[in-house]
Amino acid sequence: MSQENKALVGIIMGSKSDLPVMQDAIDVLKVLNVPFEVTIVSAHRTPQRMFDYATTAADRGLKVIVAGAGGAAHLPGMVASITHLPVIGVPVKSSNSIDGWDSVLSILQMPNGIPVATVALNAAKNAGILAAQIIGTADNTIAQNIIAFKKELKDKVEETAAEVEGMTF
Amino acid sequence: MSQENKALVGIIMGSKSDLPVMQDAIDVLKVLNVPFEVTIVSAHRTPQRMFDYATTAADRGLKVIVAGAGGAAHLPGMVASITHLPVIGVPVKSSNSIDGWDSVLSILQMPNGIPVATVALNAAKNAGILAAQIIGTADNTIAQNIIAFKKELKDKVEETAAEVEGMTF
Amino acid sequence: MSQENKALVGIIMGSKSDLPVMQDAIDVLKVLNVPFEVTIVSAHRTPQRMFDYATTAADRGLKVIVAGAGGAAHLPGMVASITHLPVIGVPVKSSNSIDGWDSVLSILQMPNGIPVATVALNAAKNAGILAAQIIGTADNTIAQNIIAFKKELKDKVEETAAEVEGMTF
Amino acid sequence: MSQENKALVGIIMGSKSDLPVMQDAIDVLKVLNVPFEVTIVSAHRTPQRMFDYATTAADRGLKVIVAGAGGAAHLPGMVASITHLPVIGVPVKSSNSIDGWDSVLSILQMPNGIPVATVALNAAKNAGILAAQIIGTADNTIAQNIIAFKKELKDKVEETAAEVEGMTF
Amino acid sequence: MSQENKALVGIIMGSKSDLPVMQDAIDVLKVLNVPFEVTIVSAHRTPQRMFDYATTAADRGLKVIVAGAGGAAHLPGMVASITHLPVIGVPVKSSNSIDGWDSVLSILQMPNGIPVATVALNAAKNAGILAAQIIGTADNTIAQNIIAFKKELKDKVEETAAEVEGMTF
Amino acid sequence: MSQENKALVGIIMGSKSDLPVMQDAIDVLKVLNVPFEVTIVSAHRTPQRMFDYATTAADRGLKVIVAGAGGAAHLPGMVASITHLPVIGVPVKSSNSIDGWDSVLSILQMPNGIPVATVALNAAKNAGILAAQIIGTADNTIAQNIIAFKKELKDKVEETAAEVEGMTF
Amino acid sequence: MSQENKALVGIIMGSKSDLPVMQDAIDVLKVLNVPFEVTIVSAHRTPQRMFDYATTAADRGLKVIVAGAGGAAHLPGMVASITHLPVIGVPVKSSNSIDGWDSVLSILQMPNGIPVATVALNAAKNAGILAAQIIGTADNTIAQNIIAFKKELKDKVEETAAEVEGMTF
Amino acid sequence: MSQENKALVGIIMGSKSDLPVMQDAIDVLKVLNVPFEVTIVSAHRTPQRMFDYATTAADRGLKVIVAGAGGAAHLPGMVASITHLPVIGVPVKSSNSIDGWDSVLSILQMPNGIPVATVALNAAKNAGILAAQIIGTADNTIAQNIIAFKKELKDKVEETAAEVEGMTF
Repeated sequence: MSQENKALVGIIMGSKSDLPVMQDAIDVLKVLNVPFEVTIVSAHRTPQRMFDYATTAADRGLKVIVAGAGGAAHLPGMVASITHLPVIGVPVKSSNSIDGWDSVLSILQMPNGIPVATVALNAAKNAGILAAQIIGTADNTIAQNIIAFKKELKDKVEETAAEVEGMTF
Repeated sequence: MSQENKALVGIIMGSKSDLPVMQDAIDVLKVLNVPFEVTIVSAHRTPQRMFDYATTAADRGLKVIVAGAGGAAHLPGMVASITHLPVIGVPVKSSNSIDGWDSVLSILQMPNGIPVATVALNAAKNAGILAAQIIGTADNTIAQNIIAFKKELKDKVEETAAEVEGMTF
Repeated sequence: MSQENKALVGIIMGSKSDLPVMQDAIDVLKVLNVPFEVTIVSAHRTPQRMFDYATTAADRGLKVIVAGAGGAAHLPGMVASITHLPVIGVPVKSSNSIDGWDSVLSILQMPNGIPVATVALNAAKNAGILAAQIIGTADNTIAQNIIAFKKELKDKVEETAAEVEGMTF
Repeated sequence: MSQENKALVGIIMGSKSDLPVMQDAIDVLKVLNVPFEVTIVSAHRTPQRMFDYATTAADRGLKVIVAGAGGAAHLPGMVASITHLPVIGVPVKSSNSIDGWDSVLSILQMPNGIPVATVALNAAKNAGILAAQIIGTADNTIAQNIIAFKKELKDKVEETAAEVEGMTF
Repeated sequence: MSQENKALVGIIMGSKSDLPVMQDAIDVLKVLNVPFEVTIVSAHRTPQRMFDYATTAADRGLKVIVAGAGGAAHLPGMVASITHLPVIGVPVKSSNSIDGWDSVLSILQMPNGIPVATVALNAAKNAGILAAQIIGTADNTIAQNIIAFKKELKDKVEETAAEVEGMTF
Repeated sequence: MSQENKALVGIIMGSKSDLPVMQDAIDVLKVLNVPFEVTIVSAHRTPQRMFDYATTAADRGLKVIVAGAGGAAHLPGMVASITHLPVIGVPVKSSNSIDGWDSVLSILQMPNGIPVATVALNAAKNAGILAAQIIGTADNTIAQNIIAFKKELKDKVEETAAEVEGMTF
Repeated sequence: MSQENKALVGIIMGSKSDLPVMQDAIDVLKVLNVPFEVTIVSAHRTPQRMFDYATTAADRGLKVIVAGAGGAAHLPGMVASITHLPVIGVPVKSSNSIDGWDSVLSILQMPNGIPVATVALNAAKNAGILAAQIIGTADNTIAQNIIAFKKELKDKVEETAAEVEGMTF
Repeated sequence: MSQENKALVGIIMGSKSDLPVMQDAIDVLKVLNVPFEVTIVSAHRTPQRMFDYATTAADRGLKVIVAGAGGAAHLPGMVASITHLPVIGVPVKSSNSIDGWDSVLSILQMPNGIPVATVALNAAKNAGILAAQIIGTADNTIAQNIIAFKKELKDKVEETAAEVEGMTF
């Protein structure tokens, strides 16, 4: 299940070089069974394409957009300015980024009126989970998948806890 | 419409001193006609209360939680760790904050598995809009309210643009 | 001379609240006798208006665009992505800015391919001078105005230097 | 001597990946002969486990808790909110941390009422020493161990000083 | 009860101008019934006095030292280098401080071997509570006072929560 | 075409070790067919040479100067203080730079009266494009080259977009 | 004694607006009885004047130069590049400075070969003392003045210490 | 010439691990023919040794002290508090430093009364040159060595400039 026309989450990124980071969003959406689509949209190099993508997103059935970008990262905010859908921004720590601060601040610090739901630096996995949580507000199956996912996180910690408690220091 | 038991958005904050900032979330949810409830929950001074709030949130009918906090702001992240609902975090620039960096980073930089949808420093208005956008993914009336809200933002800019274009410099 | 249809420099800003800062660009362009126009264009609240402004800028005779914005400031970079004209960005320290870092980084750190000529925080005066310098590369009258302007700066320093040297400490 | 039920210091961390950093606390507590226990407790993935750990800590005989965590590090502060024991926080520079600033600020900047005794980034060794110093305020044997430990630090510096003074540059 | 020769906590600060900040430590120690003494000790202007203070602290019966300082704040770390007692550092945001970062980093980032228990910027109240917690590890009366203090914090939040829940927005 | 006496853009840098970064400016100016010259000018080690370079730049036919420097980077600002030509500054992340912040701030934060058109950290490519855009304000051939260059950027994104859309995740 | 031709310390600043900060250097040099001269030299607005000042400084009998500047502060570093005298830099927190970071970094982070002796933000008093210490390395009268000055600092702390010790809290 | 009892410059560092950085000070003092001595003095691990070193420095004939340290770097400031000699501080970027900011700020931001002449991060070479410049204020031979050293820097830049000008790009 993925990238079929029934996609609920649109994953976009400014450059294919962001794909290794954004792959975590893809992977977790598959785990949580949320249909998605993936493409490249650059705010700066393909502004018209970005406009078209954002303008048609809701009509194509998308419920949430996950946008990753680095440096002076305008993609999440610009998409949020055009669509009325919730937009999740993933600050990507790109090669010439100043330690990621540029990506974080240019996604997070949106002016009043146009929010971007920002996650941690490079945290595409959390962007995927958040997208699923949003879908899950009206889709109980997805909500249950998230509950199960969180339980698994807990179980894994408890396992490693037991392991560490058994260690001799 | 507000603070009735059919609330869809729960607005919480660590201290009543955060209310002037968080009021913007309340105001915009009223404009967008999204029912909400408001209370004080402190992660650090009332941890059990926070647990209870987060554990029962979904069952009480909440769809989204908006949590504002300042300094080492643990409320949004801890609530997100307990509930499976999407949690929106508002970093509040409190009095002894180091320029707001502490609030921003301790809300934004959540570990993999537990996202918080972070908005800009003090941007409770955007938190309210984002909450409405999430509700709007499954509620067309709210979605239309957001579309109307965004149109109004645009109209106001165009008005001031006309005004500035008429000025003599 | 100003805001006539022979404008060479287009001054835009995200909000009328940026005008007190951007006024310095207006004032210095008047001093340097460079024709300009001024309006409000918001990347986030009027994305289509921004597109239209940037798309038609060169055809309307503009040679340089000066764009001021604060917070997650996308206006200069987005205009630069659409037009081939040089774009000068003025980071404005807006009210909820994190000490201006967000404005600076989201204007300065543009990706390869799409430069924005960034000036100092709130330095709209320097943006105006830079715009004049760019016009002056092909217009000797403007170049002479800049040379005279720089001489005046020097003369003023020398005056205050003489004054200070005459003080008794 | 370690991890027996007479432990006075509880060492916890958010993830087993923090163990290489936290090992320094373990090692120095062994040197100083302070009994301790070690386990994994994640504020975000096992919030209930964290509650239980903190609630029972004093009754199980612990005198001090050393908690290490990275990113939006809520473990030390949340444990401090639940127990009345002194809690020492170790900011861990985790992989996607923004240079460690997130870990430092989300542990250090606790609100009034709930202190966390924060040590330097990754400084688990200092957390261990500080725990021993706290135990040492009422246990003269431990206090003497710390005095001896500090003397050894001094002796080593004096040795290398002699070595360097003998070098030809 | 205060500043008698049975003082358990020594409160020192680099300058009398730090007293308004450090007063919070004094006040909370009085509430928690922990005997203390207060004086001025400057690492930079009275290094010998600092040496004498730190060298004699344990013998005079002090169990914990709370040291506040601003800018390049060396007082807490230097006192910690001389005594074997636990030292709590309060970074004070002094007038020419660079937003408090200098105070925080020069107290927090102590090298391995010499910890300083650092609290938040200007958080002298938390320093006082932490000092009491340390005394409380061996003094059950003080421990009970802290438990009562934390209960009061909780009660106050619950009161304001009830108040806010009763408000009409 | 390059480094002939008809050079329109002067590329200077503080040290030959900056050449790998500044090469991107050279390469893009060749692509855009803008004649240039390249040399080493150190503000700190050859101040007189810098003065001579800046004083004679306009008379030698240069229209724009691109200056790259790292650390306390004074070259762009000092050249801008001497010539009336527009100066583009490239902050170089040199070896002992504090994460590039020093280079960025000492180029960007010029005082009123003396602008430097600053580009992103290490973004010599963007400096070259900006120089071409400035030349292009009066040279239609260069303007057309920039338009073509931007179209190519767009085409490449669309290609990789098609590629990614065809991937199976 | 001051501003006579036997001046040993040259105090310069980029603008008369820096005088309130730099006055502290003047005052302490008077206290320490070190002859000085004061004037305005702007690296950016009067580069030739700066060159002349730095080139002739040693021949005019100056032993040390104290240079204050704000923002992209190039004055101390450029003067240091021209003269072989020691140059002390005072980072001034000017109005549009980004919290003083720009002033600090553009003075402090000089490249290898050209040091600037940097003091704290706005710390002109320390610049004056440091200048006196340098003169004092070869002038025993000045050295004795510094020793007396330091004793006075100590005495004042001891006075306020006695005062605080006498207070009832 | 070096480390004989006629040393004029005392080079100290907090740990032998700082020697690779501090070696640059040693090397340049040898080039400039300034006699020096080198040893290890830790403010935190050998506070008494630091006191003794600083107290006796002037009497042993030292004119300047160069002190390197990392993290919460108290050595330069504490030595400056004890001696009346000028102290040059070298912020060392140690392993657990937060990008060097801790070292820089805890050396630079000294309170009024006690200056430390701070050089750039890891810039021990500049510390050595500055020490020589200070000696050179009263020793013409050393002054001439510095003038020659600066000429050499200039000549090397001119050589590489000629080399680059001859390159084909």
